[in-house]
Amino acid sequence: MNRKMVFFLIGRILLLEGGLLLLPLFVSVYYWDGGQIPFLLTIALCLGLGLLLCRLCRTDNQVIYAKEGFLITALAWLCVSAVGALPFLISGEIPNFVDAFFETVSGFTTTGASILTDVEAMSRSMLFWRSFTHWIGGMGVLVLMVANMPNLSGRKIHVLRAEMPGPTMGKLSPKLRDTAKTLYLLYIVMTALELVLLVAGGMPLFDSAIHTFGTAGTGGFGMKAASIANYTPYQQWVIAVFMMLFGVNFNLYFLLALGRFRSALRSEELWTYLVIIFLATALIAVNVTPQIGSTSEGIRAAYFQVTSISSTTGFSTVDFDQWPTVSRMILVVLMFIGACAGSTAGGLKVSRLVLLYKTIRREIRHLLHPRSVTSVRFEGKPVDSPTLISIGTYFALYIALFAMFWFIVSFQPGFDGVSNFTAVAACYNNIGPGLNLVGPAASYAAYGPFFKLVLSVAMLFGRLEIYPMLISLSPSTWAKN
Amino acid sequence: MNRKMVFFLIGRILLLEGGLLLLPLFVSVYYWDGGQIPFLLTIALCLGLGLLLCRLCRTDNQVIYAKEGFLITALAWLCVSAVGALPFLISGEIPNFVDAFFETVSGFTTTGASILTDVEAMSRSMLFWRSFTHWIGGMGVLVLMVANMPNLSGRKIHVLRAEMPGPTMGKLSPKLRDTAKTLYLLYIVMTALELVLLVAGGMPLFDSAIHTFGTAGTGGFGMKAASIANYTPYQQWVIAVFMMLFGVNFNLYFLLALGRFRSALRSEELWTYLVIIFLATALIAVNVTPQIGSTSEGIRAAYFQVTSISSTTGFSTVDFDQWPTVSRMILVVLMFIGACAGSTAGGLKVSRLVLLYKTIRREIRHLLHPRSVTSVRFEGKPVDSPTLISIGTYFALYIALFAMFWFIVSFQPGFDGVSNFTAVAACYNNIGPGLNLVGPAASYAAYGPFFKLVLSVAMLFGRLEIYPMLISLSPSTWAKN
Repeated sequence: MNRKMVFFLIGRILLLEGGLLLLPLFVSVYYWDGGQIPFLLTIALCLGLGLLLCRLCRTDNQVIYAKEGFLITALAWLCVSAVGALPFLISGEIPNFVDAFFETVSGFTTTGASILTDVEAMSRSMLFWRSFTHWIGGMGVLVLMVANMPNLSGRKIHVLRAEMPGPTMGKLSPKLRDTAKTLYLLYIVMTALELVLLVAGGMPLFDSAIHTFGTAGTGGFGMKAASIANYTPYQQWVIAVFMMLFGVNFNLYFLLALGRFRSALRSEELWTYLVIIFLATALIAVNVTPQIGSTSEGIRAAYFQVTSISSTTGFSTVDFDQWPTVSRMILVVLMFIGACAGSTAGGLKVSRLVLLYKTIRREIRHLLHPRSVTSVRFEGKPVDSPTLISIGTYFALYIALFAMFWFIVSFQPGFDGVSNFTAVAACYNNIGPGLNLVGPAASYAAYGPFFKLVLSVAMLFGRLEIYPMLISLSPSTWAKN
Repeated sequence: MNRKMVFFLIGRILLLEGGLLLLPLFVSVYYWDGGQIPFLLTIALCLGLGLLLCRLCRTDNQVIYAKEGFLITALAWLCVSAVGALPFLISGEIPNFVDAFFETVSGFTTTGASILTDVEAMSRSMLFWRSFTHWIGGMGVLVLMVANMPNLSGRKIHVLRAEMPGPTMGKLSPKLRDTAKTLYLLYIVMTALELVLLVAGGMPLFDSAIHTFGTAGTGGFGMKAASIANYTPYQQWVIAVFMMLFGVNFNLYFLLALGRFRSALRSEELWTYLVIIFLATALIAVNVTPQIGSTSEGIRAAYFQVTSISSTTGFSTVDFDQWPTVSRMILVVLMFIGACAGSTAGGLKVSRLVLLYKTIRREIRHLLHPRSVTSVRFEGKPVDSPTLISIGTYFALYIALFAMFWFIVSFQPGFDGVSNFTAVAACYNNIGPGLNLVGPAASYAAYGPFFKLVLSVAMLFGRLEIYPMLISLSPSTWAKN
C-alpha cells in the first residue's frame, strides 16, 4: 500500500478544510460573536498539519489503487470531522469532544442528528459552520478536492468512486476534473436559486443560508428548536420542493443543462422516486388531516415531511412523532428507501430497490418458466450479472450492518426499542431525527459517549456506502505490501 | 394452467390427510377422551372431499409445470391446515376457527406458536394430533404423497421442488420416489431413536412421542405449560442433541447411511452450523450462569435454548425472556439464521448466509483488485452467477416480506414493539415463542383474529420459502391459459 500518498492526500484535504473554514471565520468577524479565535486556531491547525503531512509524505510514487482510494475516503471523512469539531469545542459551545465530533460527523455526512438541547443558544458563526458542513458533505469533500487539483490523472478516479453514492454501473468519465467541476457548478446554481427564493419570500439572509445549506446537502440542521415550523407556508413549500429536487440524480440536471430533456425525463429512477413521494404524501395527508384540522395544512405538512425523509434531510414543520401509527410507519419505510443515486441523499437509493424488484420479478418468471431467458433492463440498458450480484450483496451487507448497529445501540440503558431502532435508522440512512426519544422534538444528547461514537460510525458507513469504512477497518488493508 | 390436475392432487392430499388422522383417532379410542367423534367426522370429510375432487378433476392431461407445482404446494398446505383444524374446533377444545387454524398452521409449518393459554387442559388425542402435525410438516406433506404415488413421472418434480427448504443448486434426482422414500426412512429411524432414548430415560411413552414429534419436525409444541423445564437433565440433553441433529441437512445422513463419512463430514454448511451453535452456547452460558446459579445448569440451559432456536424448534427449559439483554439478542439473531438447508428447520438457512458472506468477500476483493477474477466456491464446487443472484434476491425478498408482516402486525393495539417484532420473527422463521408478550411463558392468544391470520400466512411464507405463496397470491397465476 502506498501509505505516503494516502497521507499526502489527507494533508491536501486538511488544507482544503482550512480554506473552507475561512467562510465561518468571516461570519464570526461580521457578527463579532466570539467565534473568531476558535476558527482561527482551527485554521492554523489545518494549515500546520496539512503542510506537515504534504511535506513529510511527498513521494515520487504517486500511483494509487482502489485500496488506497477507499482508505483515503474513509480517513479523509474521519479527519475532516475530527478537525471540524474543534471550533465547537474550543468555543465551549459544545464542551465535550465526543459531542462535538458527533455533531460534525452528523454535519458532513448530511445526517442532521443533533446532540444540542438548545440550538437557539448557539452563536451565529457556529450555526453557520454546522450547516455549512452539510453543504460540503453533500457533494463530497473529495469531489471538491479533485475539482481543484491541477495535476489530475486517471488513477485518482478510485478516490472519487469510493465517495459517490449509488450503484456504479457505467465507467466514470476520464475527464474527471471536468465532471467534478460541472457537478459543483450545478450544485452552486441550485443552492443560489433556493437562497434567492427564500430571501425573496421574506426569510432573513442568514436564516436562508442556513436552511439552504441544510436542504442542498439533504442534511437537516436548522437554527430553531421547532425546525421549520415557524416559517411561512411559502418558505416551507420552497424548502420542501428543493428537498425533493436535491434528492434527484445530478446527472439528470447535467442532461437538462445540455438541453437533453427527453433523456433526462425518461429516467426510471426519477419516476419511481416521484411516484413514491406523491403516494406517500397522499397517504399521510389523508391520515393526518383530521389531526391537523385543515386540508391544505395537512397536505403541506405531509408533502414537507415526505420530501424531508425521502431525501434524507430531516427538517420538520410539525412533530411527526405525534402522528398516527400509519404515518409514522410510512416515514420509517421511507427512511430506508432514501432518494436517487448520484444525489446528495442517503438511504438504500431508489435505483437499487428498482433493480432488486426487477431481479425478483425475473427470478419468479424464471421459476415459472425455467427455460425462459430474460435480462433485467434499467434505464433502457440491460444490466449484467456482476452488477445484479453486487446489488444483492450490497443489500445483504446493508441489512447485516444495520442489525449490528442496532444490536450494539440496544445496550444503551433507558432507551426503548423504537427509539433505538429509529435512531440507528436515522443515523445510518443520514436522516437525523427518528421517533420517540430521538423524535424531531428531542435530541441525541442522552446517548452515552460510546453509543454516540457508534452512531457516528453508522453515519459514516451510510454516507460512504459501507465499503470504504469496511475496507479501512480490515487489518489486511494496513499490512505492509 | 392445468386447474384440473391441481385440484386432483389436492384431492389426493386430502385422502392422505384422512389416512394420517387415523393415528390420533386410535389415540382417542385408546384413552377414550372424547376425540373419537371429532376425528371420525374429520376423516369422513377428508375422504368425501378427497374422493370428490379426485373424481371431478380426473383428467387425461396430467402435464404440470412449475406454476402448477407452486400452486399445488401453497394450496395443499392451506387445505391440510384448514381441515386439520377441524378436530380442535369440533371437539370444542379450541372453540373458534381462526384460533384452531392458527394452531394447525403453526403445527404443520413446524412453528410451534400457540394460542393455547392452558395447554395442560387439552385432551390426549388433541395433544397428539397437534404434535403429529409437526412431524408430518417437518418432512413435508408433498414429499409424503410423492413417496406413495405409484405412477410417478418426472413432471412431478416441480411439486417437490417447491416444498424443499434451502437454495437449490443441483438438479433433483429423477428417481424422485426413491429419494423421497429414503428421506422418510431416515426421518423415521431418527424419530424412533429419539423416542427410544427418551423412554429409556424414564419419560412416559405418551410424553416421549409428543416431544419426539416436536423435535423431529423442529416444531416445538409440548404438553406442559413449562415446556421441557420439569423434565430430567438427561431428557433435556437428549432433546437438545436431537434438535441439533434435526437441523442438519438430511443429505448428510443419506451419505452417512451409504458409508460415505468423509463426504458427509466435509460439509461447510454443517461446520458453520456447529460453530454457530457452540459459539452461541458459550456466550449465553457465560452470560446466564450468574442468574441460574450453577455452571452445569447454565451450560445445559444455554445449549438447550441455542439448539432449540437455531433449529427453529422453540422448546424451552427456562423462561429465556428473563435472561439478560445480550443473551436475548443472540437468540433473536439465531432466529433469523435458522439451521441447514434440507433439514426440517426454518429461517434463512446457514448455507444461504455462508454464500452471502462469500459473495460479499469476493465483492470486496473485486473492489480492491478490479481485474481479479475469482469464483465463489461452496461445498467444494464453484457456484454460478444465477445462483448467486437468486440468493441475493431471496434475501431481499425475505427482508422485504418480514418488514411487511411486521408493518401490518404493528397495528395490533396493546402490543409493544419488541413483542410484535419477535412475534413476526418467530412465526416467519417457524420458531414459536418470541419475547415479551409472546415469550415462552406467554401465548399468541391476545392477538386479534386478523393478526392471527396474518401471522399464519407469515408461517406459511416461511415454511414454503416465499415463492409458492407469492406465486399463488398473484392474480396472473389464476388467469385462464
